[in-house]
Amino acid sequence: MSQRRYAMIGTGGLGGFYGGRLARSGCDVHFLLHGDYEHVRDHGLRVDSVEGDFVLPSVHAYGRAADMPRCDVVAVAIKTTANDMLGELIGPVIADDGVVLVLQNGLGIEEQVAEIVGPSRVMGGLCFLCSSKVGPGHIRHLDYGYITLAEYDSLHRPKGITDRMRAIGGDFQAAGIRINYAEDLVLARWRKLIWNIPFNGLTALLDATVDLVMADEYSRAFAEGLMREVAGAALCATGREIPEAFIRSQLDDTARMASYSPSMLLDHRAGRPMEIEAIFGAALRAAAGAGCPTPQIETMYRLLKFMDKRNPRGTTI
Amino acid sequence: MSQRRYAMIGTGGLGGFYGGRLARSGCDVHFLLHGDYEHVRDHGLRVDSVEGDFVLPSVHAYGRAADMPRCDVVAVAIKTTANDMLGELIGPVIADDGVVLVLQNGLGIEEQVAEIVGPSRVMGGLCFLCSSKVGPGHIRHLDYGYITLAEYDSLHRPKGITDRMRAIGGDFQAAGIRINYAEDLVLARWRKLIWNIPFNGLTALLDATVDLVMADEYSRAFAEGLMREVAGAALCATGREIPEAFIRSQLDDTARMASYSPSMLLDHRAGRPMEIEAIFGAALRAAAGAGCPTPQIETMYRLLKFMDKRNPRGTTI
Repeated sequence: MSQRRYAMIGTGGLGGFYGGRLARSGCDVHFLLHGDYEHVRDHGLRVDSVEGDFVLPSVHAYGRAADMPRCDVVAVAIKTTANDMLGELIGPVIADDGVVLVLQNGLGIEEQVAEIVGPSRVMGGLCFLCSSKVGPGHIRHLDYGYITLAEYDSLHRPKGITDRMRAIGGDFQAAGIRINYAEDLVLARWRKLIWNIPFNGLTALLDATVDLVMADEYSRAFAEGLMREVAGAALCATGREIPEAFIRSQLDDTARMASYSPSMLLDHRAGRPMEIEAIFGAALRAAAGAGCPTPQIETMYRLLKFMDKRNPRGTTI
Repeated sequence: MSQRRYAMIGTGGLGGFYGGRLARSGCDVHFLLHGDYEHVRDHGLRVDSVEGDFVLPSVHAYGRAADMPRCDVVAVAIKTTANDMLGELIGPVIADDGVVLVLQNGLGIEEQVAEIVGPSRVMGGLCFLCSSKVGPGHIRHLDYGYITLAEYDSLHRPKGITDRMRAIGGDFQAAGIRINYAEDLVLARWRKLIWNIPFNGLTALLDATVDLVMADEYSRAFAEGLMREVAGAALCATGREIPEAFIRSQLDDTARMASYSPSMLLDHRAGRPMEIEAIFGAALRAAAGAGCPTPQIETMYRLLKFMDKRNPRGTTI
């Protein structure tokens, strides 16, 4: 059993799934909740998963970060749209030698966290997961689940694979989560954008699942154009090369995805704010800072921002 | 009273309004109808207009082009989405020395018509009109109404202002329609695209009236970007310069438009096909033929094509 104490900051489709799996495997996991706090305190967590359903009748549940114990690994699993609260959510929870594991989508979050806890205590965790909260304390895991871990470096250099990556990765592996180790967080984040920018964006904009976007020649061509524009921006803004073969394999994988609804589509349909800034805004700012052209990403950004502002607001945690 | 006999090919918001005004002023106007034929034959046309309502209890109504008399001016007022029928609609109706007046939106329609009747018998009529059919034989005219006339030239040169332009323009003026004469059809068509591409496209894509698109900083910025891209394509593909001052004045006019619904938004909301090919597809092909970059127009084209294919089909005339 792991020696590390985990905090799960946010207990939705992501935090509820990973935190639930860690807790089931015997890890000491402490869950921060918002609207579901009392329900989970009284009834625990329920995870319906393609890899096997389970119920945790009793978990360490908290309604306020200040009530939580200090934790060795503070996993950030709230929506990025609530990231203005990161300081008050992480500060009271992180142990003196603890590390923050950013499980969120998008670019630049690790930088924000580094400003709170210092650059040597930040790790990125890129989640490839199809999971959502379907009721209070009730998570539905539909597909995938692996995490790519990568160390943050304040100068954006590849940091390699460290002992603490392997230690944390080992805890997840013991919980049945597949783990990849990446040497270069910057490259890993941009590779993830290759999928997230076209498919989160287009499914939300067109109110259509991934299979419909892929089946239509026009939306598919636009998705491919966006992927290549992201790859171009990655090279231009960071010097990281994302080969055409990677784009092709992502397209092949996506063509097999059936009627998958990415998080941005789910958020928009549910009236929640979309993670536009973390995914699109941050990529645009990185590209603009290096003078790289990104007309198609900018188009998506503007259209999604319009839609997002018209959307009725739901909860953000 | 005019000596010219007019055919109105299509009697919707456009053909019903202009044809109705011409008939009211004493012109000999013959209306081709589709679904509304029997209603209009029996009850005539009704036009509710900001410039004064009127009813024409009896008009020359036809359900088939073959039944119509030969006309001196054949005005094309169907949706461009039905333009594969142009040959059979124009052929039986045009007099030997008649002229076809293309009142439709978009690029390249005059070329299509020239293939049917020859290049010397084609004129463009660019309509700035907010009018729609609200019931059988029932037109509602909300705003604007002026037409810019310009002669077609098979080599795309400015043709100047001809006597027949003034003669036809005079008939419209006698019917209370403001007429502008343009020397250069190519420039006039591209200037119209400066507005149609952003505002038809964005209102349909975002399911929002013009005022909402203008009020939001992101959609407005994208609209401006599209306008500049259209101007760039016009210069690159045709050598026609559309100055920044024109774009600014279009933006100022648009900001005063209140909750206007352009035809593409109305078509999409009504489940009718949108005029994507005539407006976006033709502009893209013209730009691509000259090697001009149009990433934002292409984006709009692809997104709208996706939406259009998912839309249930209504009638096209």
